[in-house]
Amino acid sequence: MPLDALNGAKLPASADFHVHLRDGKMMELVVPTIRKGGVNTVFVMPNLVPPVTTVKHALEYKAKLESLEPNVTFLMSLYLHPSITPETVAEAAKAGIAGIKSYPAGVTTNSSSGVLSYESFYPVFAEMESQNVVLNLHGECPSDHDAGITVLTAEERFLPTLLDLHRRFPKLRIVLEHCTTAAAIDAVKSCGPNVVGTITAHHLRIVVDDWAGDPFCFCKPVAKTPADRDALLRAVVSSDPKFFFGSDSAPHPATAKRGGDKVAAGVFTQPYATQLVLDALEAAVGRGLLRADEVSNERLQGFLGDNGRRFYGLDAERNEFIVLKKAGEIVQSSLQTPDGELEVTPFRKGEKTWSLAFV
Amino acid sequence: MPLDALNGAKLPASADFHVHLRDGKMMELVVPTIRKGGVNTVFVMPNLVPPVTTVKHALEYKAKLESLEPNVTFLMSLYLHPSITPETVAEAAKAGIAGIKSYPAGVTTNSSSGVLSYESFYPVFAEMESQNVVLNLHGECPSDHDAGITVLTAEERFLPTLLDLHRRFPKLRIVLEHCTTAAAIDAVKSCGPNVVGTITAHHLRIVVDDWAGDPFCFCKPVAKTPADRDALLRAVVSSDPKFFFGSDSAPHPATAKRGGDKVAAGVFTQPYATQLVLDALEAAVGRGLLRADEVSNERLQGFLGDNGRRFYGLDAERNEFIVLKKAGEIVQSSLQTPDGELEVTPFRKGEKTWSLAFV
Repeated sequence: MPLDALNGAKLPASADFHVHLRDGKMMELVVPTIRKGGVNTVFVMPNLVPPVTTVKHALEYKAKLESLEPNVTFLMSLYLHPSITPETVAEAAKAGIAGIKSYPAGVTTNSSSGVLSYESFYPVFAEMESQNVVLNLHGECPSDHDAGITVLTAEERFLPTLLDLHRRFPKLRIVLEHCTTAAAIDAVKSCGPNVVGTITAHHLRIVVDDWAGDPFCFCKPVAKTPADRDALLRAVVSSDPKFFFGSDSAPHPATAKRGGDKVAAGVFTQPYATQLVLDALEAAVGRGLLRADEVSNERLQGFLGDNGRRFYGLDAERNEFIVLKKAGEIVQSSLQTPDGELEVTPFRKGEKTWSLAFV
Repeated sequence: MPLDALNGAKLPASADFHVHLRDGKMMELVVPTIRKGGVNTVFVMPNLVPPVTTVKHALEYKAKLESLEPNVTFLMSLYLHPSITPETVAEAAKAGIAGIKSYPAGVTTNSSSGVLSYESFYPVFAEMESQNVVLNLHGECPSDHDAGITVLTAEERFLPTLLDLHRRFPKLRIVLEHCTTAAAIDAVKSCGPNVVGTITAHHLRIVVDDWAGDPFCFCKPVAKTPADRDALLRAVVSSDPKFFFGSDSAPHPATAKRGGDKVAAGVFTQPYATQLVLDALEAAVGRGLLRADEVSNERLQGFLGDNGRRFYGLDAERNEFIVLKKAGEIVQSSLQTPDGELEVTPFRKGEKTWSLAFV
């Protein structure tokens, strides 16, 4: 059977380099699920309302997160915004802020404060380059139908911008977040070693058909074609240190996913972050895309933690391990606050998944 | 301003050659809205539960529809199904059944009884050819990810089947229903004059971005790219008699569109059928895709009625006219049964639309 060899395997705890932990009640609901997903290190996205644009805000946010879950390392980020100056970058570097995240205006949840043009940020990028602060790119162009840009082409059409930024700032460390296309994988590969890409768990599983008609599979960037998904799966097991895990787990109240006129974009995977990667790899082996021996302990370890930790320079990580168990669990149908007022629906609710335990 | 010249224009009442009128309470809610859309002739799809597979069922259904709205001509159809034989076709022709609709299994609402392979129906098609009964094709292949078939490519991948059927049964009159791609338009054009295509109102307006996150824009076939939409718009004003209106208005209870885990596929346009075509053409003129003079009274008349009536041989149509009025109305936010138990949400609810009146 696919991946039987990984049943009982011991891996370092996963690192998830793209998470949305929100604030308020949602934060309180979601943060305690991080370790359930086999994860002890997260890179926290700054798209709160209002966005995290100051070091002070980021550190206050970090303190709240740590008080909710002291056994997780929280890497913090700022939201690229006109108020961010080279001075902010220097201050951020000093305070240990790991990255600055760029959202093109309007492409996803809480991105209305996002970037319209990168040119005005060149001095900021130059300072980031010299201070070794990572640029995290949400790599999508806003839709422009006259130019043929839709949710389907938004990522591919952004890639020239990635290449241009890399050319202008060759030492700037850049993460192309949540790669969803074969073209994105190729673009990241074509750049120098300081340009890398994160890949989510759900984009290893779903394609356009899955979010057509299913609010809980709808996210930005949208899942693309089967060929794109398969390129992501191959990147995961490629041993290429440029690719590592970032779940883009994006919780929304269940009421924002269904029941309204619009469906909020985001797939919630946090409590099953590692497990869902295994599920997706297992399915890919099952349908013959990957060989079981390609999904080796070593490659998994690279994708789920080592590659990203190396990129972010996390030498002094907690020395923790997880043990995997095949198809040991059913994904919860919902998570709720004790008062029942807030409900979040996990991806693949009610379906079989791997399980794991910290050891 | 775009289409000012059509303000006050008088046209023959529209014919809508692709409608879902359902049964029970939904039928009672929807049928009285047909004329509100400027339509006095409809081709009724047979995908009830169970599907309409006998002439008797079709005629009983027709009687119910006529009792609800005597001032509409209802063209009836059967659902292509293993129980349909050449004898059924002869009986259908005699009873005035206008067409037989083929649904590939599983591609849309109530299509689970659909076709897996066309070969077994060749004797039926041969009889349809000789009896002059129209074959109405839902032109999509079921998704097959290993073969790269998704909702985005399902129509284009079906086109070789259309061409093959046309080659095998060159006199069979075929409607490729709800064309959504430039490729479909080209395929229909490439066939003889007895192969035609219907085009909906909503596919003249929306693209993939619109149904990404909006349950009320989600339908099958899904709206595709801006280039595809623009090809449809050009076909509408091309004066090509191969293309005519079929709204594919597909009402679902609002609860099936939102609030559940899955979103039912279908856009409800019936009460605004003609108006929404005008809205879409006006928007296309507004953004410079079409010239205002291309949207002539004559071409509109062809698309909205004449082309289809000619194809279906409706010489003896009611001699009724409508007068158009620009941006005269706001689309209702919902339609409800008097008891409030059933609610349907129209496409573009709350937005400005053209209005019209029978004269």
